[in-house]
Amino acid sequence: MGNKRVMLPASEIDLTAVKYIPENIQAPHLTGFWFKFFLNLAEVPGIGSLIVNRLKNDNKFDEKLKYTVIPEYPMFKPEFPPQEPEPAVVSIEEDAKPEDRVELALKCLPEYDPASNWSGDTTTSFRYWKIRDYAYAYRSKFTTPSMVAERFISAIEEFNNKNPTTPLLISFDPDEVRKQAAASTQRFEQGNPLSILDGIFMAIKDDIDCYSHQSKGATTWMHEVREVKKDAVSVSRLRSCGAILVGKANMHELGLGTTGNNANYGTTRNPHDPDRYTGGSSSGPAAIVALGLCSAALGTDGGGSVRIPSSLCGVVGLKSTYGRTDMTGSLCGDGTVAIIGPIATTVEDTILVYAAILGSSPADRISLRPSLPCVPNFSSQESLQSVESLRLGKYTEWFNDVFSTDISDKCGNVLSQLSEEHGCRIVEIVIPELHEMRIAHVVSIGSEALCALNPDCCDGKGERLTYDTRTNLTLFRSFTAADYVAAQRLRRRLMYFHMEIFKRVDIIVTPTTGMTAPIIPPSALKVGETNMQVTGNLMRFIITANLLGLPAVTVPQIYSKKLYPLRSIF
Amino acid sequence: MGNKRVMLPASEIDLTAVKYIPENIQAPHLTGFWFKFFLNLAEVPGIGSLIVNRLKNDNKFDEKLKYTVIPEYPMFKPEFPPQEPEPAVVSIEEDAKPEDRVELALKCLPEYDPASNWSGDTTTSFRYWKIRDYAYAYRSKFTTPSMVAERFISAIEEFNNKNPTTPLLISFDPDEVRKQAAASTQRFEQGNPLSILDGIFMAIKDDIDCYSHQSKGATTWMHEVREVKKDAVSVSRLRSCGAILVGKANMHELGLGTTGNNANYGTTRNPHDPDRYTGGSSSGPAAIVALGLCSAALGTDGGGSVRIPSSLCGVVGLKSTYGRTDMTGSLCGDGTVAIIGPIATTVEDTILVYAAILGSSPADRISLRPSLPCVPNFSSQESLQSVESLRLGKYTEWFNDVFSTDISDKCGNVLSQLSEEHGCRIVEIVIPELHEMRIAHVVSIGSEALCALNPDCCDGKGERLTYDTRTNLTLFRSFTAADYVAAQRLRRRLMYFHMEIFKRVDIIVTPTTGMTAPIIPPSALKVGETNMQVTGNLMRFIITANLLGLPAVTVPQIYSKKLYPLRSIF
Repeated sequence: MGNKRVMLPASEIDLTAVKYIPENIQAPHLTGFWFKFFLNLAEVPGIGSLIVNRLKNDNKFDEKLKYTVIPEYPMFKPEFPPQEPEPAVVSIEEDAKPEDRVELALKCLPEYDPASNWSGDTTTSFRYWKIRDYAYAYRSKFTTPSMVAERFISAIEEFNNKNPTTPLLISFDPDEVRKQAAASTQRFEQGNPLSILDGIFMAIKDDIDCYSHQSKGATTWMHEVREVKKDAVSVSRLRSCGAILVGKANMHELGLGTTGNNANYGTTRNPHDPDRYTGGSSSGPAAIVALGLCSAALGTDGGGSVRIPSSLCGVVGLKSTYGRTDMTGSLCGDGTVAIIGPIATTVEDTILVYAAILGSSPADRISLRPSLPCVPNFSSQESLQSVESLRLGKYTEWFNDVFSTDISDKCGNVLSQLSEEHGCRIVEIVIPELHEMRIAHVVSIGSEALCALNPDCCDGKGERLTYDTRTNLTLFRSFTAADYVAAQRLRRRLMYFHMEIFKRVDIIVTPTTGMTAPIIPPSALKVGETNMQVTGNLMRFIITANLLGLPAVTVPQIYSKKLYPLRSIF
Repeated sequence: MGNKRVMLPASEIDLTAVKYIPENIQAPHLTGFWFKFFLNLAEVPGIGSLIVNRLKNDNKFDEKLKYTVIPEYPMFKPEFPPQEPEPAVVSIEEDAKPEDRVELALKCLPEYDPASNWSGDTTTSFRYWKIRDYAYAYRSKFTTPSMVAERFISAIEEFNNKNPTTPLLISFDPDEVRKQAAASTQRFEQGNPLSILDGIFMAIKDDIDCYSHQSKGATTWMHEVREVKKDAVSVSRLRSCGAILVGKANMHELGLGTTGNNANYGTTRNPHDPDRYTGGSSSGPAAIVALGLCSAALGTDGGGSVRIPSSLCGVVGLKSTYGRTDMTGSLCGDGTVAIIGPIATTVEDTILVYAAILGSSPADRISLRPSLPCVPNFSSQESLQSVESLRLGKYTEWFNDVFSTDISDKCGNVLSQLSEEHGCRIVEIVIPELHEMRIAHVVSIGSEALCALNPDCCDGKGERLTYDTRTNLTLFRSFTAADYVAAQRLRRRLMYFHMEIFKRVDIIVTPTTGMTAPIIPPSALKVGETNMQVTGNLMRFIITANLLGLPAVTVPQIYSKKLYPLRSIF
């Protein structure tokens, strides 16, 4: 029995009295034999409950959820009041053809100057090719998609043979890639490419359907129970733009982890340091983009799965507004936090891919009725002014609650630059109840994931999941239905706080992650690991955007009340 | 471990192959000592789980929820596509003053003919006074609200002294009633009544705030933890129309039961037979209306709590569309199934009260965006034609699955009459997955109720609830968060089936309850009883409207896809 707590209604909270409480997760770090031992114990009925309850008590789980009177009504999905249109943006029709939407987004970009990018000397300094670089090269006949395909295929094969292995794609068919590239090459020869994305190489995370690959979610068995008959909606939109879909990228099993550790297919290694994790769960998508092998990739993000690996691999990841992308055909499309988002090397490329994939599902249009999507119009004068007028919210104590001050310093520098060079205004803010937010998030995403997995777990396949996933599921099984409803009450409450903050600022700026890429313990390669402190560090700034459905981009992470891609200021 | 089941997507179900499966609830009927004994055992950790799991297995709970792949995405609240306006209705502005809305509804009623109601001989045959009868009597100075108040007060006191007791109001202040009546009388004297509802006597269920009464939800302690500072929104709307609010009506504790049994304050008895239940949970509101003591009452309905007692007491109850009424200030306002609805003796009076109380909360307007409310316009010629064109859906096997054929015969007669005299067309329909619907409903309402009660139960007040409530809470505690999410998947699925049916019919007609008023076992008066078979009979036709948020009225129950009061055809 706990002691009953009563929360004041959100509107009566005195923000000046809110104290920042540094995150302090209490859980053992386990790998190898001890991890196996722990899990086997935790899965025994009775003893397991004792262990899980201890972990939950240590982290004030019941105290915050079960024993607390939360006066707000539940908010089961992110709900926003109708939006004012932003200045300096161009609206995009959700029902327009993806090719036409990409064309519109293209017109909003600053002019492309081939001279600055094609000085002829491409060998001396490494530089990512942007989508428009490829497009220019194809149209200028410097290269063809088929030529790029051959380079890509040999690079992937080289990676597969590397020691240590760093599996990027877990489903890959070179002939299929050659076929797509040949078709694209032919379109260029005939002078009718489908869009600026024609011939652009992209990877798809293994939890998003990309026909004729299987979708395993990086498990060993998902394809046995779920057949892929066609592309996911977002993937079909990329395909109709001519993108070359190279295969299914590696990931943290079922998206239930933040490091990218995967004992089934091997752990993707960070392109900047093979001893470190890429972050997850979209480990493969982020790595393949950071390596320069693909211009973009699609990931899913329900708790940072696009942004964490993008951040740790030094690329750009966009978590779009909840409901803005159609999740049909993805393994995690049935919850209240996850979206499909692009990973690319630049904000510009992120916008182009996003313009192709966006578009709500018919069901979300009924229930969420999102405002018209739009993209920032960098080709207008107004755009610059609009950046100058931005008010950037910074919660300094939170901002500085990082594993290494390197992170807060770097992010602080970016803020200073924005303020000094671009005239943005930094506004100090306070966000209450961050611990409650974390609990509400894990209950929501965990319960929704468990619901989807339950029938197969009951059927014996649960034992064929990694120890890491099984540990998470053991926790998720302990959540009661009343916990779930209470978490949704917290969601309404936190939405209120944020909407109040967004009256004073346009954007909230935080580091994306509270630590840089963690080192992979060798003992974690075979059986995985559980390290909640690392998870806490990686997710510290992440889940606000998920729980509240807000859009967010890396690096540093900014998230906004505006329900479309953010005014990209980097 | 169960066996995995895989459901086809709802759109692929062959309705011609659907077989009706009669409801068959497996649970013991317990009262008195054995009920206490059972509960004490069920509340012991370990043994309790075994008992609850046995009950759940017997009723295929996990089989339908946990072991089943439900392909639909969760639908957490009833979501409707935009509505076409109905013919022969008058729209009502949600933001209009309640008095003005009642005025508009009044104009839609057939002309009032005092001669037919005031033949002078009111003593020989019992007849309920309708709201317009009171209004006419006040305006013609036949009587005054103060005179009615005295009659009312002495009737209530008489009931309180009756043997067996039949407690109608559990919070009652004669002086407060006199005060309201005197103010109303004065308004009539001055010739400026507030509306047609001025001086009309109404009771408020004990889970809806009515200042300065306490709201106990018929528990012994709710007022200790929750202070009433003002009227609930719906009650304040009645008050601004001049209604006289007589006090807080008895109910099944916390609304968690269908009989109206209440060991705390005594069980309200059925006005037509004191040995029988009124039905619940709005036992007091239905009884006080059926006795003719109040013209109307407000109840709440999350699983039949307005309709079941209305039906068993022979009056009219309206379960309005989910979200159409503002639940602010009620004890059950935080879920996804409950509404506040009027009980009255005629459809006409139900419409008048409904016109006063309707109006969505600001939050629901954002998330549900309900279509403009409206009332049927009986004063138009079109109205009659509109009744003639109605297509009434009947699922014969379900319709006939009743405890006594008396019910299906009577309801069948009404249908024949509607068809023969009014030209309505009866259309045979099939509704699949009724058992799944029951499970989805109990998980939703139970989890949402438990979430609200948890902090107080943890604080020791749970033990001060009735055995009946505690039995229900023991069941609700066993629901996992994944169960809750799975139930919401079923909700989307069942919504699909119903929206398909509503392409063929305008209204679905069923009996309201599967049995007439059950006899009160004398042993159940002191400690209550648990009788799931009776609950099943009482709720058999009820919960569709709750789970899917559809409006429904008694008797026989009709529910409709139209998101406003139904075209009242009785």
